[in-house]
Amino acid sequence: MKGNRFSIPDAINDESMISVAEAIQIVRAQTRKLPAEPVSLEHARGRFLAQDVVADSDLPPFDRSQMDGYAVRASDVDSVPAKLRVVGESAAGRGWHNEMKQGEAVRIMTGAPVPPGADSVQQVELTRELGPSEVEIVESVTTGRSIVRRGSEIKAGQNVLSAGERIGAAGMAVLASFGYAEIIVGRQPRVAVLATGSELVAVDQKPDRDQIRDSNNFTITAYAELAGAIVERLPLAGDDTKLLKRQIAEAADRSDIVITSGGVSVGVYDFTKPALRELGAEFFFERVALRPGKPTVFARLPNGTLFFGLPGNPVSVSVTFNLFARTAILAMQGATDPTLPLEWAVLAHNVKGAVERESYLPAELSTSEEGILEATPLKWGGSSDFVGFVRATSLIIVPRDTGIIEAGMRVKLVRLPV
Amino acid sequence: MKGNRFSIPDAINDESMISVAEAIQIVRAQTRKLPAEPVSLEHARGRFLAQDVVADSDLPPFDRSQMDGYAVRASDVDSVPAKLRVVGESAAGRGWHNEMKQGEAVRIMTGAPVPPGADSVQQVELTRELGPSEVEIVESVTTGRSIVRRGSEIKAGQNVLSAGERIGAAGMAVLASFGYAEIIVGRQPRVAVLATGSELVAVDQKPDRDQIRDSNNFTITAYAELAGAIVERLPLAGDDTKLLKRQIAEAADRSDIVITSGGVSVGVYDFTKPALRELGAEFFFERVALRPGKPTVFARLPNGTLFFGLPGNPVSVSVTFNLFARTAILAMQGATDPTLPLEWAVLAHNVKGAVERESYLPAELSTSEEGILEATPLKWGGSSDFVGFVRATSLIIVPRDTGIIEAGMRVKLVRLPV
Repeated sequence: MKGNRFSIPDAINDESMISVAEAIQIVRAQTRKLPAEPVSLEHARGRFLAQDVVADSDLPPFDRSQMDGYAVRASDVDSVPAKLRVVGESAAGRGWHNEMKQGEAVRIMTGAPVPPGADSVQQVELTRELGPSEVEIVESVTTGRSIVRRGSEIKAGQNVLSAGERIGAAGMAVLASFGYAEIIVGRQPRVAVLATGSELVAVDQKPDRDQIRDSNNFTITAYAELAGAIVERLPLAGDDTKLLKRQIAEAADRSDIVITSGGVSVGVYDFTKPALRELGAEFFFERVALRPGKPTVFARLPNGTLFFGLPGNPVSVSVTFNLFARTAILAMQGATDPTLPLEWAVLAHNVKGAVERESYLPAELSTSEEGILEATPLKWGGSSDFVGFVRATSLIIVPRDTGIIEAGMRVKLVRLPV
Repeated sequence: MKGNRFSIPDAINDESMISVAEAIQIVRAQTRKLPAEPVSLEHARGRFLAQDVVADSDLPPFDRSQMDGYAVRASDVDSVPAKLRVVGESAAGRGWHNEMKQGEAVRIMTGAPVPPGADSVQQVELTRELGPSEVEIVESVTTGRSIVRRGSEIKAGQNVLSAGERIGAAGMAVLASFGYAEIIVGRQPRVAVLATGSELVAVDQKPDRDQIRDSNNFTITAYAELAGAIVERLPLAGDDTKLLKRQIAEAADRSDIVITSGGVSVGVYDFTKPALRELGAEFFFERVALRPGKPTVFARLPNGTLFFGLPGNPVSVSVTFNLFARTAILAMQGATDPTLPLEWAVLAHNVKGAVERESYLPAELSTSEEGILEATPLKWGGSSDFVGFVRATSLIIVPRDTGIIEAGMRVKLVRLPV
């Protein structure tokens, strides 16, 4: 180490760079689904289903009235006005279940079961109550009018949601309706987050002239929580290999994933990789053909805990977390597609690619009145410029070895979680 | 009531329908911002800033090296190879602060301060260490090379985020970097949620033949939490005015907003409005020219608590919650724009409008390779069909009294929160 403090051969050997797609593939291949667990419905939102969700009844469970009005036989009101005898009342939750005969009507409420014998509902506004048991129907109806047929939305036994889907707000209605007071979901990974670098001080401290406050731990925690992880933020590790080694080993014992930021470059003070090697980690990749985010490490510790070593620059952290660590966090929960979905947009102004690396450049999105998704690249100062990054809602993907892509051209992008 | 159990005049008086835009305007006008409160940074994500966020230092705080390598004077390496005397080392957190003179170099790490006297950094790969205090620079550099200038990302005193903005994951980095260990945010509204209707049973019960399980409480809770509210789910209210009145009154005492679903139609068993009247509520609107969601009630109880009475159908609930109740929840937190942002898309197939009402129709979104946002309307059975709704990611807006809008035409839409 002393004689060649920069490890030059390591630094210039870019043959070992793998593509972003390969790196994501490796993350997926090395990540195992965590065991599933039951969760009560009130805590199910945002979790990933580990079972299919099946309708336990037809929906609607009965022929249902869409209106307040009168259940009738359409043939009885062919010529109007028609007087009918009111023989009962069907309310939501309290149906009228006798056979309704010719010349009869049943007062009915929105959501209530349509009585047997009735084939249509006339809305109350087109009727006139003549007395407690007589009604005049003012307009004719067609058969089936204002009735939602039993099973027309879904039939008992049909699959509504599948294992691997995320439970959103609308999914909660489905689970509740079919009686899933408890549901089997993928366990949330426990993620330990650790920032390295002796230049870092905590947020409540005043940095000395050479120092900056740690922000990466907060960024990683926020994105990991958005991905569904349960996060433990560890104290700042400084640049002490021994301390770092101990912190990683202890965190690995109680976590499914350990994520560090900083310390993965080639400088003499970059101690993360040596610490990992001493811990006996298996390295899957150490360099990705990605800008920003080249020196990203993915490894597994001997106890099976996955390890992501993200670069120290704040923007690199956001990019590499969402490409790689997020994928592992979602895959552990059993997500059908754990990667950020690709979209296409039209560039609002030029962007520039990088030699040998795929670029992920921060951008804002909007849609034009023509329905075109427009990506406006943000002015930013590079991978350290988190202030420029703060308004980014997406990352424009520029293929490696691309020169300038001009305004008006189409680009691929991914949206950043918010 | 007995003689005219349907309150017909109330039902047909559609003069009192107001437009969706007016309704949203009324919600905004009647909603007061809640007091602000301090929150520690680890709990700040998703909250709305009640103060501006100002840079407390230049960023970078010093001229910073982007590379591992040697800080040099560009003029010293005009002709290469050039031998320089290594006089020190500048690491991240441990800078070298003497004046670097002509003919000298300082070993420097990524993120470290560039010493006074140096004007550029040559990356380590283009240098050769000749001994502990001598280096050969293999390639020339231009002045400023690999240096991020002090204050080039932001200058101390500049505004980075403004009151009313939501704190996202990227915002967490900004807050941490500028020392906001605690930050002033809008208080989260306390929202009480209550489903009415005697046809409803709880999720863990088996419905009788006329009954269905309550799902609206779960939907509203999910969306309200996504909007930042602290939600209390009340027991099912049935159709008992007295019980409903008591539940609303008690909930109002400890809540900023009460939201009910069901019971706002014109049927005899719709007891919500009578209960509100007896409680002395001030009504702002009772009918909106909206499909689905016409019988939406917005009112204020005497103690100042806002009240939203949403229709009973599950899809109507999702639509009216996100148009109206979400707006109030965000406005209470001080959001600069509390409404769902409008976007434009191209229709994948025909949709049909409604007479006198603006339609909000569930759709999936995708982008074509041309960068066009495409909205695919979902096949659904109407306002009760939450199964058809479960894959909706947006609502297509069809203006009132519009017939068919054909595939390929442009439409406005809002995205649903997930």
